[in-house]
Amino acid sequence: MSATVWFNGKIVKDALSVDPADRGLLLGDGIFETLAVFNRTAVWLDDHLDRMMAGAITLGLPPDRLIVADGVAQVLEHAPAPHGILRITLTRGPGLRGLAAETRQPSLLIAHAPWTSDMLFTPAMLSTSSIRRNETSPASRLKTLSYIDNIIAAREAAAIHCDDALFLNHQGLVASTTIANIFILRDGWIATPRTSDGVLAGITRRKLLELPRAEERPVTPAELLSADAVFLTNSLRLIRPVHSLDGQPLGRDDVALAGYFDTLCLRIAEESGVDPRAVD
Amino acid sequence: MSATVWFNGKIVKDALSVDPADRGLLLGDGIFETLAVFNRTAVWLDDHLDRMMAGAITLGLPPDRLIVADGVAQVLEHAPAPHGILRITLTRGPGLRGLAAETRQPSLLIAHAPWTSDMLFTPAMLSTSSIRRNETSPASRLKTLSYIDNIIAAREAAAIHCDDALFLNHQGLVASTTIANIFILRDGWIATPRTSDGVLAGITRRKLLELPRAEERPVTPAELLSADAVFLTNSLRLIRPVHSLDGQPLGRDDVALAGYFDTLCLRIAEESGVDPRAVD
Repeated sequence: MSATVWFNGKIVKDALSVDPADRGLLLGDGIFETLAVFNRTAVWLDDHLDRMMAGAITLGLPPDRLIVADGVAQVLEHAPAPHGILRITLTRGPGLRGLAAETRQPSLLIAHAPWTSDMLFTPAMLSTSSIRRNETSPASRLKTLSYIDNIIAAREAAAIHCDDALFLNHQGLVASTTIANIFILRDGWIATPRTSDGVLAGITRRKLLELPRAEERPVTPAELLSADAVFLTNSLRLIRPVHSLDGQPLGRDDVALAGYFDTLCLRIAEESGVDPRAVD
Repeated sequence: MSATVWFNGKIVKDALSVDPADRGLLLGDGIFETLAVFNRTAVWLDDHLDRMMAGAITLGLPPDRLIVADGVAQVLEHAPAPHGILRITLTRGPGLRGLAAETRQPSLLIAHAPWTSDMLFTPAMLSTSSIRRNETSPASRLKTLSYIDNIIAAREAAAIHCDDALFLNHQGLVASTTIANIFILRDGWIATPRTSDGVLAGITRRKLLELPRAEERPVTPAELLSADAVFLTNSLRLIRPVHSLDGQPLGRDDVALAGYFDTLCLRIAEESGVDPRAVD
């Protein structure tokens, strides 16, 4: 069980009291966000809440940013440790039968788990999933609770001792992995697939796209093999170098990647007062 | 709240006590079945449990048919009404962070809701979803808890006053709707898409495929428009005639469809002692 849990308005010590008709539990009907916490500061919280509220509108969930922000503040205050991992889960709440049925009250779960420093900058071996990312679905651009494709792909990768699975989309273009955006580095430029390729608009991804010589564009699988380096981004690992794909070694430029990692860590230190690299 | 609810071993009267790390709630990580109940008999229960156990194996969930069957028996015994709708939900249970993390104990929820007789043989207007069924994913052939594509499509259909949404797959072939298999009737034959087209192996679908002049084969959207009749099947509605697609009227042969409906109702009457048409 997570160290600190807030559910529908209050800190809870044991299990959640969940309505058996909650559509989060029955249908994966909701969205979530995952954030790093340093010094009781949720990193890039406004970006995460912006994205969550936009996702809520796409799915027709009633968004209430103030309630989410208030719950986050309570959890950060009660958490036993200053650093951690925050997950915010918003479901459509209990409803009548029927996929299009409306609900009266969404459910909101906010959980704080211990930070694990071994996640940062650890290299990854990827395998290509046989599941294609479904870029025709809005869900391919959201962090919805319907994660079964990601789970199946992650389990298949783990079974062959890989760290994560690469999704191509139905055009055969590179999309993302099960938990991260993907970038290539080439001739001093970084590039990452467009959201229209079936990709979540990652917050760490966005921070890198704000840098010079960074672009969103279609990326082919062949470009992964010929890149100077390939890396993953997400809100917990920040940057993860990719050292192989389907057993083939990839180009490595750990000095350049360390530079991007450094930039992100310094940005987080500015915001939270703590450099992630200094946390045990 | 449903009339009778069983959760992890016992009948519960109020809310469920759910571990905040339950992957059903957080990740849509699990599977479900929906069954009609007449006379305290869950219709085609063995078929549903066979499918559920096969799905559990595909997802790496530890299947336990005896526990599920025992829970179903308890719910049917305690239900206030002899007829109803049964939903069996199996999640991977609480686990550590990480998509590929193993869990120790799955969660099992069995809920019995009142029967609503207005579902039988009511005609439907369909609209084609812009979301394609992702036939590259095993989830397209399972009733997983990750239902967000179905929900988005169902909401879009409801917004334009349609009853359900048609999914094509990425080859442009007909797949299914958000809650039903689809059949065409032509020259006395019925045909339905193959599971490899991204289709659940529906139990009602299977009962019809056991009849003479019934086949699984690729079905094109053009065939829907030129068919003698188009209809949907699922475990609650049995047969639902489709009267229009994207505003275009479709062929109608309600006499032939009534014949298939009659066959299914008589099969259920044999098993449960009750003809669904006789239930208010």
